[in-house]
Amino acid sequence: MLKIFRSSENQRRGTTMAAERKVTITAIAREAGVSVPTVSRVVNGRSDVAPETRARVEELLRQYGYRRRTHAPGDRAALIDLVFNDLDSPWAVEIIRGVEEVAGAAGVGTVVSAIHDRAGAARQWMTNLRARASDGVIMVTSVLEPLLHKELHRLGVPLVVVDPAGAPPLDAPTVGATNWAGGLAATEHLLSLGHRRIGFVAGPPRLLCSRARLDGYRAALEGAGVPVAEELMVPGDFYHESGFTGCDRLMELADPPTALFAASDQMAMGAMEALRRRGLRVPQEVSVVGFDDLPEMRWSAPPLTTVRQPLAEMGKVAARTVLRQTRGEEIDTPRLELATELVVRASTAPPPPAG
Amino acid sequence: MLKIFRSSENQRRGTTMAAERKVTITAIAREAGVSVPTVSRVVNGRSDVAPETRARVEELLRQYGYRRRTHAPGDRAALIDLVFNDLDSPWAVEIIRGVEEVAGAAGVGTVVSAIHDRAGAARQWMTNLRARASDGVIMVTSVLEPLLHKELHRLGVPLVVVDPAGAPPLDAPTVGATNWAGGLAATEHLLSLGHRRIGFVAGPPRLLCSRARLDGYRAALEGAGVPVAEELMVPGDFYHESGFTGCDRLMELADPPTALFAASDQMAMGAMEALRRRGLRVPQEVSVVGFDDLPEMRWSAPPLTTVRQPLAEMGKVAARTVLRQTRGEEIDTPRLELATELVVRASTAPPPPAG
Repeated sequence: MLKIFRSSENQRRGTTMAAERKVTITAIAREAGVSVPTVSRVVNGRSDVAPETRARVEELLRQYGYRRRTHAPGDRAALIDLVFNDLDSPWAVEIIRGVEEVAGAAGVGTVVSAIHDRAGAARQWMTNLRARASDGVIMVTSVLEPLLHKELHRLGVPLVVVDPAGAPPLDAPTVGATNWAGGLAATEHLLSLGHRRIGFVAGPPRLLCSRARLDGYRAALEGAGVPVAEELMVPGDFYHESGFTGCDRLMELADPPTALFAASDQMAMGAMEALRRRGLRVPQEVSVVGFDDLPEMRWSAPPLTTVRQPLAEMGKVAARTVLRQTRGEEIDTPRLELATELVVRASTAPPPPAG
Repeated sequence: MLKIFRSSENQRRGTTMAAERKVTITAIAREAGVSVPTVSRVVNGRSDVAPETRARVEELLRQYGYRRRTHAPGDRAALIDLVFNDLDSPWAVEIIRGVEEVAGAAGVGTVVSAIHDRAGAARQWMTNLRARASDGVIMVTSVLEPLLHKELHRLGVPLVVVDPAGAPPLDAPTVGATNWAGGLAATEHLLSLGHRRIGFVAGPPRLLCSRARLDGYRAALEGAGVPVAEELMVPGDFYHESGFTGCDRLMELADPPTALFAASDQMAMGAMEALRRRGLRVPQEVSVVGFDDLPEMRWSAPPLTTVRQPLAEMGKVAARTVLRQTRGEEIDTPRLELATELVVRASTAPPPPAG
């Protein structure tokens, strides 16, 4: 029994040494004034490096006592960190599922954390991350991104950002969805059914994905020659409650919309409940479109027409990307947007005849 | 930069040594023929140990070179593993949230995995667990429990079982909910509204929680002198689809029920969709009660009456328990059931007048 733990202790030491070597690669890249992939190309004996760069890098490699990586079992990433702002949505479990599937199969543990948009919690997490010498980080839609990115860079820990909150850091790959195209498709669907008064319940304006969805909505209206009315756009925060109150606000307009596009499924659920309480039937009297396609939306009453965001797939791609980074491999597509797709179910129909 | 990683390497080594000592405690307990808590009592200098047991244990402690634990920063658990069968339900994220909150605050990383009820995936996970020298395991409702428990015991890794699938292992603490009382409360609520034909959509019969909910349903009927009709009990697997088909089956009976109790919220959603498609209004024509109280159930149409299971709280208690085990502390309440609570919303009402 003790023997087993000794052997895992060895493996852990191996991993830590691997982490140290990885840091060394970053240090070498900085000292040589080249990129990490360039150092990686030298290490891997590739020919596409200028001779003097190669000489400079090789000298530093020797200086730091860097040994070429082997792929012994202990000599690989052991842990990655997956960080959310909040673990309070079925949305999160979809991403976790994707990341875990790829990481687990590679023998890598996925450490899940929440930092609640609070700098204090983020610092605590960063301390924990260092203590467990995590090999890479996947960060999901956090406004603390810039702060944490800087620190991770300093530590030489690779970072992949899922659904970047703001302008993504230049040297961290990002995995998102085509939010603008999704907003466009949702709105065009409602236009094609004959709707002209289409309300929009927005996500938090500080998030890139919210702004892209809103712009897709506007672009569809403009494309159809329908004026964009300020009164038809109400703020929300992606959670149910804001869909409920946003829908109420829209329905109290002198000329209420015949259709709503909510920038998240949860807000669409809130909106449907507000309509139900007003005795308005979906879709006969008001159509509703959401965004995300959480698995349970097939079972909403009625089943929700929504824009599918491939959340689990985004998690898988992020995990593959961060694992490649931990191996010092180059990332071909540092800005990846997976396609969104309109899924038409039972919550949308032509508007009622003008009465 | 290198310095930072060296220091985390030291921390990691510290942790691994702690793990080794922990294994030693288990080994000593086995060799002395006493329980781990007994060894722990000796280590902590407590008086409630028979003198000859204490002597035997102290001798072994000396033999194994066991040193009393200090509480230096590096000398504590660094990782715990949280294992699900599947990460495909909003249910999972509630438990993750609770575990992460407690573990994160203690500086401990929560590694989340899914083993999909497959022995192969479970073996892979066990290999990964050993490689990362995780300090403890929280296992959620897995039929592979007995298999994994044996191996974890052999490795000296503490285990806490959340919502045990079957008869829980004797030496692993469990955290569950009062499923029987919840099934009783849900059914009594429907009885008190005047329902006498109450359908039940069951969970998987191999799971203890399913059987307890079913027995609560039966007990309430029996308590009210209402005969338990076999035809009113249909099988399900906790997922939406089975609630949909189960409800359809019940509604096609010659004398269909006026109320349904589904043993999970997801099945209740499926049942409500089946009723909607049949043009039956909830709750005017049929009442529906679920089980779990997932956060989004406040927003179902209509908002669901359900039995609240404190999932995040169960995660917190499990995390506290496993962390105490990693410190060699005694567990006072190895069989904990947190209270369930009936939450009455808008999906239940008196039965329609007999027509």
